[in-house]
Parts: sequence; C-alpha cells; structure tokens
Amino acid sequence: MVSPSADTRAYYRIAVDCMGGDKGPAEVVRGVKLALNDVGPEDRFILVGKEKWLRSLVKKTGLEGHPRIEIRNADEVISMDDKPMQALKSKKDASMMVAFDMVKQGEADAVFSTGNTKVLVGAGAVKLRLIPGADRPALVAIMPHTKGYFVLLDVGANPESTPRHLMHNAVMGTIYAQAALGIERPRLGLLTVGTEEGKGGARINNTHTLLKKLGDEINYVGPMEGFDMFEGNYDVVIVDGFTGNILLKTAEGMFSMLQRLVKEKLRWNPLYLLGATALLPVANGVKEHLSSDRNGGAPLLGLSALVMKAHGSGNRHAIRGTIRLGREALSKQMSYRLEHALTRANEIVAETEVRNEAVPAK
Amino acid sequence: MVSPSADTRAYYRIAVDCMGGDKGPAEVVRGVKLALNDVGPEDRFILVGKEKWLRSLVKKTGLEGHPRIEIRNADEVISMDDKPMQALKSKKDASMMVAFDMVKQGEADAVFSTGNTKVLVGAGAVKLRLIPGADRPALVAIMPHTKGYFVLLDVGANPESTPRHLMHNAVMGTIYAQAALGIERPRLGLLTVGTEEGKGGARINNTHTLLKKLGDEINYVGPMEGFDMFEGNYDVVIVDGFTGNILLKTAEGMFSMLQRLVKEKLRWNPLYLLGATALLPVANGVKEHLSSDRNGGAPLLGLSALVMKAHGSGNRHAIRGTIRLGREALSKQMSYRLEHALTRANEIVAETEVRNEAVPAK
Repeated sequence: MVSPSADTRAYYRIAVDCMGGDKGPAEVVRGVKLALNDVGPEDRFILVGKEKWLRSLVKKTGLEGHPRIEIRNADEVISMDDKPMQALKSKKDASMMVAFDMVKQGEADAVFSTGNTKVLVGAGAVKLRLIPGADRPALVAIMPHTKGYFVLLDVGANPESTPRHLMHNAVMGTIYAQAALGIERPRLGLLTVGTEEGKGGARINNTHTLLKKLGDEINYVGPMEGFDMFEGNYDVVIVDGFTGNILLKTAEGMFSMLQRLVKEKLRWNPLYLLGATALLPVANGVKEHLSSDRNGGAPLLGLSALVMKAHGSGNRHAIRGTIRLGREALSKQMSYRLEHALTRANEIVAETEVRNEAVPAK
Repeated sequence: MVSPSADTRAYYRIAVDCMGGDKGPAEVVRGVKLALNDVGPEDRFILVGKEKWLRSLVKKTGLEGHPRIEIRNADEVISMDDKPMQALKSKKDASMMVAFDMVKQGEADAVFSTGNTKVLVGAGAVKLRLIPGADRPALVAIMPHTKGYFVLLDVGANPESTPRHLMHNAVMGTIYAQAALGIERPRLGLLTVGTEEGKGGARINNTHTLLKKLGDEINYVGPMEGFDMFEGNYDVVIVDGFTGNILLKTAEGMFSMLQRLVKEKLRWNPLYLLGATALLPVANGVKEHLSSDRNGGAPLLGLSALVMKAHGSGNRHAIRGTIRLGREALSKQMSYRLEHALTRANEIVAETEVRNEAVPAK
C-alpha cells in the first residue's frame, strides 16, 4: 500500500505475474529486462511463476544473479477461462494470486500481470481491497488523438457502471491523466450519443448531474460524441465498462483490418512496394503515434495497491511501457491522491444530496 | 405501406426531404439525379422543401420538366437542434413532416432524409406507426469487414434497448442482411465484452436466452467481442443503440484521424509525395472498400413504411447509395417480411414463456 510518505521510499518492489499471458513467460522476462532501466535505480522485480522455468529464462536473458531480480515460485496458472471467485478458491497457488498475496503481506508494492483481466479485477478487489471512497475498480487505457493522447476509462473492469461509478471514474481519470500525461487540469468529457442535455438515457443524465456538482474538483467540459474523441479536445473520456471495452476492442480490430487490407493490395504490384518503401517513414511515424508504448497496457485504478495490466497479447515493449507507466504512478503517490480526491467527491455529492433532499442517482 | 402484393406494383414514389442536411438541398437534388438510373424505370421522386429553391436547383441540375421528378412545397425546416415531440407540434409544415404526411396519405411509398436523426426516428414512429410486432425502430448501418460487409444495428435509434428490443433487432437485421447483402442465412452475433455465457450483464444474458429460443428462425452464432466484427465471421451484429451509435461515430472519428495523421506527415518531404502517388491505387482500393456507397446511409427498420436516412454530411454519392439500398428493400417487400418474422418471433418467445412459466426478459 502506498502511504502519504511513500515518495520518500528508496525503492519499490514490483511482483510480476509471469504466467497466463498469450506469449508466455519468456516475453514477460524480456519485458522486465527492458524495464530495468526505466524504473528507479534500486527498484526490484520479483518474478512469480514456475521457478524452474523462470530460472532458465533469467539465465537465457542474461539476468542471472542480477541484484534487482528475484524469483518466487508459484505452481499454478490462471487461464483465460478461469472465473474470479472460482480462481480465488481453487487456484490459491497461481502466480497471479501469489503476486497479490505478496503485496498483501508487505513483500511487494505493486502487481504487474498480462493474465486474465476478469480474474485480475475480481481477485484484485478481494485480495487488495478497494481504496476508501471507491466502489469499483476501473481499467484505464491511454489512446491516441490527432494531437497527442487521452485517457479512456472504464475499458472493461465494470460493465454495469452506475452514475456513481462513472463519477468516481471521472475523479480517478483526472488524477491519472495528471500523472501519466502531465496535464494539470485535464479536460473531461462524458461519452454519449448526443451532446444536448437529456440525450443518452437516465444513466447519462444522472452522471451529468453528479459531474456538474463536483464543480472545480474536476474540469468537466460536458457530454461528447464518438467522433469528438480523436480531435484532441478532451484529455479524459468517461464511459461505462461495457461500451468502453467494446470501443477499445473495436479500435484494435479496425486497425488490424486496415493493415491487412493495405497488405493484401500491396502484394499485387512490385511498383507499389517501391512506393511503400519511400513511405515507410510516414507509415512508421503514424504507427508510432498510434501505438506508442504508452498504450500497451493499463493500470487498474481504485485498488489500495497499484495493479498494472498489459494486453494478454502484449510483447516485451508493451510490457516495458506498462511497467514504466505504473512506476510513474507509484512515485506520484497515486493511491493516496485517489483516496483523497474520492473522499472529497463523495462528500460534495452527499452534501448537495442533503441540501436538495433529493437522490440524484441510484 | 407495403402490402404482400407490393411487388406487383409498377413503380414506387419516394418523398425526398431536401432540407435539413449539412450540405443543403443542392447536394440532395444532385444525389437524386444520380439515383434516377438505379431505381425502377418508372419510379418517381417527390422533392420536398422550399419550392422556389427547389425549382431553381432542378433547373440548374438539368432535371426541369423531368417526367419522374415532382416538387412539393414545405416552408419550414427541421434543424439539428429540434426535438421530436416539439417538432411534431410546432413544425407541421417542415419538409420532413410533409414527407411523412405524404406517405400517410398514400401519396408516397417511402421517405428519404439527410436531416435530424432523432426527429426522424421519433416523428417517424408517431406519423407512420410501427410495424405490428415491433416495439421500437432501429437504425441499421452497413459496415466493412476484411472480406466484405456486415450489418450493424442499432446505431442510435434506441439508446435504451431492452432484451426484447435486441431480439427484434436480430430478426430485423437478419431480414435486412438477406435483402441488402444477398446472404441467405446471415450469421448473427451479439456484441458484448466477453464470449463466455454470463459475461456482459443482465441485458446481454437475457438477450442471449431470447436469441437461443428463436432456434432456426435466425442463425445465431453467439456472443462476440469488438475485434471479432472485422474478421468476416458475422453478417449481422446486434448491439444496443447507445453503444452502437458511439461505435459508429468512433469508427468515423478514427478514420478521419488516420487520414489527417498521414496527410500531416506527407507534407514534410517531396519524396513522400512520389511514394504516395505510386500508392494511390492502393489507397483508393482500401478507401473504396471501407466507404462503399453502401455505407453512406441507413434505413430505419420497424416502421410501417420505409424511411431512409443518409448522414447529415453525406454527399451526392452517399445519397445515391442510400436511395439505391432503400429501393432494393422496397422491391423485396421488406415491411411485409419484417412484420411476418417479428410476429413469428414474438409467438415463439411467448410460447416458451408460457411453457416455462418464467419471464425471460423485462
């Protein structure tokens, strides 16, 4: 757990769940090797998983005997089909659970995983508990817009978000954007189907009311539509976990469709290949902008300790980027700031509720 | 209204709301001119809007005295800010309302508009009434996947879809895909956040139950995720109108961001322009696949008469494509088939409800 005095710490210990990702533990270990230079000079990584495999991988990667790398054995693996409550009961020795337990017992400060998101969210909430003031954790993604990047949440931790959850996400997203994007007063938008007040249904309207109540605590611009996201006028975009998850995966699916379409058409003609070679720097520039290592993974906000999640299919660069982002969050005392801001937001909303004698949202 | 005997009709009359689109009536009239050759040789268009303007535009476009073009005056215009119920009361003489009235009074068979979607949906449901069996209209879009096209609905008519609405959309989407894409047994997917049963919340689970109950009436494959859409394994994708609308607009926003990013980077270097010129056919091929005239607009399914909606910003080609799609639907007796299939679906669901003595969905 990160306390107010956490920034005076000399180093952080990150428990790395090496199993359960699509690319296997080898890629995770390579990602950690890359991350060693990004984090604090005394930060330590504890690799969690089948000790025999990890020893051999550490050796292969040239990390054997490294003073900042430890190994912790865990015999089981959470698979992509496992369910949170089931896994909590029957897979107590899985690498993900062991990583959580290490934080719980004060042997680590944060968890990194490429494994099953559902179990990470569900078991994380049970094992590490929520930050006081938060009702649900939220997964946050960094997305590209035309001029830079914005923060999108929730991208799948909580598919049935209530107005209160969305209000909490606005507070958490603001603090995360300050830390991860370095924006002092992040402009916040509520994603919906039309920008007139009254559009989008009861959930949107009640959320809108709550967000306005927060006043200067956040920089709420107002409701926004899908195409507004990429114009660069918002730094934080709030959406329920159902729509957010579909959105993120749709975006991924669209990019890979585009790449495939271009590749297929390129095959037809050697002249095209010449053109493509000339344009390679352009293509790479666009690609770099779109898939910066900043958007390889996402932290899970709202838990009492930092949990970082990289895509199950994420390669070593995505893993490195996710760890770097997470480390920044640690050094910026994210959990402490989240707790403070959530408590303040809940107070403001409760106050106006009492004043108005009305319950604005279920 | 289209009756079972409608396919014996010699011709159809399409009331075209010429006002209210972002590009003005001139673009609509040009779109109609292009559409003249796509529709039946005796089909007629009735242009609805300010008569003085329309007369001059018809003259300019070389359509003056055309035997298949008529003009109907309407003094008012529905703006993008108008609300359905307000507009129904206070803008009775708006071009969109006049077009609806013409269908109601048997002077036209279908309505085409580029105007305010909300008003088109709301006023359309009041003026033209729903097909027996339908509870809400749904906007349907044709989207590209890697190998061809699929049908996505609802993209914004009904942001608060219930399981029953989603079940109706499955039935309507199936019939629409048969007509518009020529696929006999369209493979149908329910868009959600995970493909395991039990994921995605109560709405998804109840919808899943209803869709399974329909048995062979539809070709339901199962729940699917965002990135599955573009792989080409689904012909009809069902989603609530809130998520569907955000999805569609996000896709649009992403494409225009990509175009802008490429253009910006191209400016830097004349060599790039050479490469780009060599690659122009590739870019155009991809662009053609992605923005075929098939996806310029969408019909509103579930009303007793055909209503076609092109994007407010749609150009003449999008308008032409939307009209062609709509005309195909007319000749395929869409309304009659929708009514028949919806009634059948409602019967099946009611039967199993009685048999199981359980109410599967609110």
